[in-house]
Amino acid sequence: METSTVDIIKVASNSRTSAVAGAIAGVFREQKQVKVQAIGASAVNQAVKALALARDYLDKDGYNVITIPSFVDVEIEGKVRTAIRMLVENR
Amino acid sequence: METSTVDIIKVASNSRTSAVAGAIAGVFREQKQVKVQAIGASAVNQAVKALALARDYLDKDGYNVITIPSFVDVEIEGKVRTAIRMLVENR
Repeated sequence: METSTVDIIKVASNSRTSAVAGAIAGVFREQKQVKVQAIGASAVNQAVKALALARDYLDKDGYNVITIPSFVDVEIEGKVRTAIRMLVENR
Repeated sequence: METSTVDIIKVASNSRTSAVAGAIAGVFREQKQVKVQAIGASAVNQAVKALALARDYLDKDGYNVITIPSFVDVEIEGKVRTAIRMLVENR
């Protein structure tokens, strides 16, 4: 997991759900928007679990966050791969 | 994949993305809400891909659908398992 300057949280298959959820909530509180990106079934699963958890965290702060999933092509080591991007915004 | 009377679309790891997306869009058009449920990384991944695709389908109909992921305990063959439930609503 890493947070880039464009505020994309990249989730890996070995990312810890609670750590990713904390990062999502943290970026959201600052910027009122987060992009979460994952490639592959395990990483996507971790991302969705983290989003469910982050929603609970942010609910306690009075936010009602929603997720908008989309496909996005990313280049990794010269190869184009399809990632799942999940945009998190307040409803 | 099956659609129960309570309108939960259950996604399996071997569900076809486009078929699930079509089912999500179909139920949404009728009821303006759908629950999508998946257990395990592969099934969750299929569900999220289907949601991204369904969003595109429904965008063409003038809807702006969002997803709200949460954890839900379900009983399967006498054992309690944690599923991911994704509620789909218009924004």
